[in-house]
Amino acid sequence: MSPGKDSPRAGEFELIERYFAPLASGAAGTFGLHNDAAVLPLAPGERLVTTVDTMIQGRHFLDCPPGLVARKLLRVNLSDLAAMGAEPFGYLLAAAWPFDIEEAWIAGFSAGLAEDQAAFGVTLFGGDTTGTPGPMTLSLTAFGRIAGERVLDRASLRPGEDLYVTGSLGDGWLGLEALRGKLAALPETQRGELVGRYRLPQPRVALGQALLKEGLARSAIDVSDGLAADLGHLLEASGVAAEVEVAALPVGPAAEAALAALGLPRQAVAAGGDDYELLFAADPAAREAVAALARRLGVAITRIGRVADGGGLTLRDAAGREVALDAPGWRHF
Amino acid sequence: MSPGKDSPRAGEFELIERYFAPLASGAAGTFGLHNDAAVLPLAPGERLVTTVDTMIQGRHFLDCPPGLVARKLLRVNLSDLAAMGAEPFGYLLAAAWPFDIEEAWIAGFSAGLAEDQAAFGVTLFGGDTTGTPGPMTLSLTAFGRIAGERVLDRASLRPGEDLYVTGSLGDGWLGLEALRGKLAALPETQRGELVGRYRLPQPRVALGQALLKEGLARSAIDVSDGLAADLGHLLEASGVAAEVEVAALPVGPAAEAALAALGLPRQAVAAGGDDYELLFAADPAAREAVAALARRLGVAITRIGRVADGGGLTLRDAAGREVALDAPGWRHF
Repeated sequence: MSPGKDSPRAGEFELIERYFAPLASGAAGTFGLHNDAAVLPLAPGERLVTTVDTMIQGRHFLDCPPGLVARKLLRVNLSDLAAMGAEPFGYLLAAAWPFDIEEAWIAGFSAGLAEDQAAFGVTLFGGDTTGTPGPMTLSLTAFGRIAGERVLDRASLRPGEDLYVTGSLGDGWLGLEALRGKLAALPETQRGELVGRYRLPQPRVALGQALLKEGLARSAIDVSDGLAADLGHLLEASGVAAEVEVAALPVGPAAEAALAALGLPRQAVAAGGDDYELLFAADPAAREAVAALARRLGVAITRIGRVADGGGLTLRDAAGREVALDAPGWRHF
Repeated sequence: MSPGKDSPRAGEFELIERYFAPLASGAAGTFGLHNDAAVLPLAPGERLVTTVDTMIQGRHFLDCPPGLVARKLLRVNLSDLAAMGAEPFGYLLAAAWPFDIEEAWIAGFSAGLAEDQAAFGVTLFGGDTTGTPGPMTLSLTAFGRIAGERVLDRASLRPGEDLYVTGSLGDGWLGLEALRGKLAALPETQRGELVGRYRLPQPRVALGQALLKEGLARSAIDVSDGLAADLGHLLEASGVAAEVEVAALPVGPAAEAALAALGLPRQAVAAGGDDYELLFAADPAAREAVAALARRLGVAITRIGRVADGGGLTLRDAAGREVALDAPGWRHF
């Protein structure tokens, strides 16, 4: 890790030593962040999986405690690794800080990374810091490992498979609506719950690995753009259709209350984004195995529909009637 | 590779298909940029080396053709891999485009990447695009491979070793001075030569690999912040001192003319940055081998001094007198 030549402050090397070098200690190949590049640890037979995501102040976060910004930045990337079935182990950070950033912000950001490093077993391997005249722009490249040749992809859905989604839908999008002041009618605790889910997603890393290892799923995706959009990616890549029952979509009490307050139908949660839940398909013969996995990992897994021949997504009500997905799309502030 | 949820334009998926998917074709593990993450190809016994660098419009480039921006972004990262002795093979791109960016800019950027992919044997494995209200911010994570356990590090200099640097020094920094209008006295061809070196560095990837494979060097660094600063990193990490002869520093005719025009002494090139040359140390017994390597690769390699006991860098003139390094440091516009 090294400061750009145009560091925002004279003490940039010291800031790296103080707040980032400790995040890289204890792992070979990080060189204490003192090298040009990092060497990643892989055992024989392992393959490396990598992804990158960017968060920009004012677009992806606003008035958010720095520790939560750090943790969300890490978690959205871990969610992408989970969707491949990979075990996360490390990351690089490219941070463009505004020139007037306060050291306390960087300290809080670093503390958030430390907290989630412990929670997810990952280490900082390096990065780059630079000053920007624009909004803070944070890119994180995450690394995971997979044993063997297979990964969870997007193109292997088969007609007849069940469709599942983890956790609950809509909370992230509705948390953002709450931050925008649109859910003032909701009790404070429910608003807080939704905002918390928006700010701190739960990447399903253990589940993704288990689905791959146990051969329960061949395809998965993390729901970041909204169920309809992300399921659409799976359907297009696989050349199949899907039927989803609106009544089966997992929606929590706070989200139910928020939908009611906004006058929106239940299927609106399929258009809302920022869920970071895992969407996957499995053979109907595996229903018991999927349920057992959910119990073992303590993750809610809900069967929401099935894969069919053809193309496109059809939403149906409990009576089997087609339901339109005309809810407003999810937008950033 | 995927657009952020807040894509700058409706056709973001189409732009990725048109300009970036072709850069990812032909390599397994990129999934045509259609997956959440990429799988990197490594053979048994190989280790993965990775680094990230960011370039921000107005700070790291300004009024520069998009193809050259792309190639410099890639090359500064390849230079970091070269300093470890790694063989580059791929990269991820995180691009935050301004909302009003023109498609022609992206087309030119993509064409530049394609050109250097062919030149350096690397492939796009994935990335992230998003819209920014601020200046264009481009982060690139590069991947290289190393066979075996060793890498070129920063901490293995030994007293008595010779110090070498590739190519010529000062051109990058002086090219930037030319862009700032400070070298109007120079002939157009010399200004163009320096600007070209600033905009398009030559990462010494073949040399870095050879130094490692042939065991000629244990430590290296790429000169991005200026010879004095980067040699300082090596000295500090290794706990040694260095003596460098100012007369031995490789300075080309255009840089000589520029120094004269600016009224600066020769040692100013040790303070200027953006050279992206390779600085390394080797045993005096290896002088013939280093010279042979230079001939084989067609890269100029100049012996500029030696490693000594103690700490810190001393510059000396031809008569052995100490020379101060008080030239103005290299600064971004």
